[in-house]
Amino acid sequence: MLIKTSSQSLTEQLCARFAQRIRDRLLAPGTRLPSVRQCAQQQGVSPSTVVAAYDQLLAQGLVEARKNRGFFVREPAQRDAPTEVAPPRPPQAPASQAPVDATALIRGMFHRSSSKPQPGIGVFPPDWLESAFMPAAVRKVSATPSLQAFSLQYGEPMGDSLLRRALSKKLASLGVHAGPEAIITTVGATQALDIVSRSLLRAGDPVMVEEPGWAVEFARLTALGMRLLPVPRRADGPDLDVMARYCEAHRPKLYVSVSVLHNPTGYCLSPGSAHRVLQLANRWDFHVLEDDTYSHLAPDHATRLCTLDGLQRTIYVSGFAKILAPNWRIGFVAANPALVEQLLDTKLLTTLTTPALLERAMALCIEQGQLRRHADRIRTRLEAARSRSVKLALNAGCRFAAEPAGLFGWVDTGVDTDALAQRMLDEGYLIAPGALFHAERKPSTLMRINFAATQDAAFWKKYAELVGRM
Amino acid sequence: MLIKTSSQSLTEQLCARFAQRIRDRLLAPGTRLPSVRQCAQQQGVSPSTVVAAYDQLLAQGLVEARKNRGFFVREPAQRDAPTEVAPPRPPQAPASQAPVDATALIRGMFHRSSSKPQPGIGVFPPDWLESAFMPAAVRKVSATPSLQAFSLQYGEPMGDSLLRRALSKKLASLGVHAGPEAIITTVGATQALDIVSRSLLRAGDPVMVEEPGWAVEFARLTALGMRLLPVPRRADGPDLDVMARYCEAHRPKLYVSVSVLHNPTGYCLSPGSAHRVLQLANRWDFHVLEDDTYSHLAPDHATRLCTLDGLQRTIYVSGFAKILAPNWRIGFVAANPALVEQLLDTKLLTTLTTPALLERAMALCIEQGQLRRHADRIRTRLEAARSRSVKLALNAGCRFAAEPAGLFGWVDTGVDTDALAQRMLDEGYLIAPGALFHAERKPSTLMRINFAATQDAAFWKKYAELVGRM
Repeated sequence: MLIKTSSQSLTEQLCARFAQRIRDRLLAPGTRLPSVRQCAQQQGVSPSTVVAAYDQLLAQGLVEARKNRGFFVREPAQRDAPTEVAPPRPPQAPASQAPVDATALIRGMFHRSSSKPQPGIGVFPPDWLESAFMPAAVRKVSATPSLQAFSLQYGEPMGDSLLRRALSKKLASLGVHAGPEAIITTVGATQALDIVSRSLLRAGDPVMVEEPGWAVEFARLTALGMRLLPVPRRADGPDLDVMARYCEAHRPKLYVSVSVLHNPTGYCLSPGSAHRVLQLANRWDFHVLEDDTYSHLAPDHATRLCTLDGLQRTIYVSGFAKILAPNWRIGFVAANPALVEQLLDTKLLTTLTTPALLERAMALCIEQGQLRRHADRIRTRLEAARSRSVKLALNAGCRFAAEPAGLFGWVDTGVDTDALAQRMLDEGYLIAPGALFHAERKPSTLMRINFAATQDAAFWKKYAELVGRM
Repeated sequence: MLIKTSSQSLTEQLCARFAQRIRDRLLAPGTRLPSVRQCAQQQGVSPSTVVAAYDQLLAQGLVEARKNRGFFVREPAQRDAPTEVAPPRPPQAPASQAPVDATALIRGMFHRSSSKPQPGIGVFPPDWLESAFMPAAVRKVSATPSLQAFSLQYGEPMGDSLLRRALSKKLASLGVHAGPEAIITTVGATQALDIVSRSLLRAGDPVMVEEPGWAVEFARLTALGMRLLPVPRRADGPDLDVMARYCEAHRPKLYVSVSVLHNPTGYCLSPGSAHRVLQLANRWDFHVLEDDTYSHLAPDHATRLCTLDGLQRTIYVSGFAKILAPNWRIGFVAANPALVEQLLDTKLLTTLTTPALLERAMALCIEQGQLRRHADRIRTRLEAARSRSVKLALNAGCRFAAEPAGLFGWVDTGVDTDALAQRMLDEGYLIAPGALFHAERKPSTLMRINFAATQDAAFWKKYAELVGRM
């Protein structure tokens, strides 16, 4: 709620709020601002205040007016010069069908809009990840002589050898047999996924992705010029009929999948489905990129494609952002020897090496069993949080579109979640609207919630209130 | 020199040496092994020992025999199965014109082959970079509360704000005016260059590069599907006539340049040449990517394109691998506001964020003036090393193809440096053959030396001896 102060008028406050949100990309380019009447009602101000605020945004070049259609957020590249009423757009690109600017939405997720819990974020709240062993490990590797050794040369191209040995053991416990020489460390799982895409694909290649799925993956593949073939993700795995049709029609080179605790649904792949995916991969000769980002939250025996296939045509990717230290940016990829060579070339071309100091600290945390115990504690705590959050969500009128599991809940709100997201932002809450998880942006009534950040009754109260008014 | 031991025959030793070098990519795929007679003479063993060693390599699938042409290193992907005499190659691809596998050569440079100084490496020897302030800075930022703050969230997408403020000041001292909001941190200058290429170019786009130039840049652009247009680099700048012809014929979108202490020549751009490059850029509407990797080794007043242009169509990239901590992988890019938005999107898609702990430690090293004083000391020490190395090189019969300056010397040996590189490796020395610095691999008598690693009389003695025998 805006409140007039001596230093800032309501108009200035409203304009500043929109301006900030546009710059933070929480309002994506191409988005239409609410109508004057809507906005006045939502914000509890007079229409003339809204008109004045929109005029200021126009003068700052942040929005453009389209005749009889209202105000739209401009592309950053167009924002250099202020604009008056813009010339009408060519008819072939109506705003409602504009291509997704997924990165806009992702960037928004990095901005803390308030100190409240943020149900839309993709990681655990920082206080969940606190530990004493992590600082101890860093202290150990940053004692002067080891620090110098980890800093003053480029380091091993494959990544710290101790970490790769520890990862090899961890993979063995999942039934994936990869020696340290089959593992390359990366700047988070994100770089691992990027390196694999760049090594295996050329611009224009068709790639199968899961839908719903993770927007960063869609956006990266799109930015690399790939053609996305969205495969519906079901509770037990991908829709195999759709996959088979894609194979026949497009001969995709790659299928990217989160088998275990899929984002955003929490689904886990069934053994039967895994077997049939690999049969298709063999028949149609495509690679499978298995993104096991949530591995620490699932039991070791969960079904993984890489376990069945033995890294023949599967490639395993994971990282630690979801369990220990998101900002250390430690991820890795495991693949068969011939592919490892190619992947290492791509790593060298894109970042040369990766910071060994943090990799070694992570190795210590794994080797000493501390990470495993930490993960056990997190899972227990998450279970309690999930159970509490599910109750609160149901009470607030949500319906779960998928059986609650893992970190994320995939809930149906019954209202357009893009619009809801803007209203929740007004209240200081970031939510993740369903449109984020589709390869082509379309309105959605779904949203992803982070169970660790939705135990707050105040959030659900505000949620129910806003949904009730939509 | 190979010496028979009780545990390993000469054949086994010779085979192991080649196998290791092939796996380390110090012998690139497609390279022909020396003839049996040559090899026997070089290694001081009998021809039958060589024949037996080559047979073992063949059995291991590392090389292939081509009828009447000898033994060639196989591509890694072909190495799964051992091979007998391979079918003759299609005539359109003779080995001598095979496409460059630049990454092969680069990877070789990360393998320490011995404890001797390595004239071919691109960084200072570790003992030059040792400091007390770097460990102190890391200790400070890894005290428990700050460590947790730097680790438990993804962190700022643009990079650590303190580092960006420090970089903004540093850039101002070079006459480049970029606020912290115009600067993005990256995983080394390498990722910065990669991000810019990916943001501005699409597969198939023509890009002007300098020749000689840095192989990683050639290889990355090639891997991204770009068409390289090599512009000869002269003492005062690029060959402007060639650039103008490229502009007319190909309309390149980007020119990538190391203006100051160019790698491998050490050349610095003249103000007049800088002005004319920017005139061309304006006339033909291309961007200029200025890679200022060696900035800490040059005076602040050295001519930079970004200084003249004010980051209008220039983009500035630099890092710290050459002055402080190669493995921290801290680099950055500065650009105008509209471009910064695009570059940040690409950073998010490729690595999300970068490790803030190391960035903050670097910020402290800069803020407290320690990095500047360290750079002063390194420059003084390098000057002495250069002067000594130049004398030794001239005495060994080298001719300098470019006036010695900065970290690298560009010397003419009078013999094929690819062959020389293999002979020097036998003696435990890594050198950087001239072919590494050409967009299309061709034999070269030039090599790049690292002045900090060529003060060793023993190296030059061995060098003169081997060159004398070629």
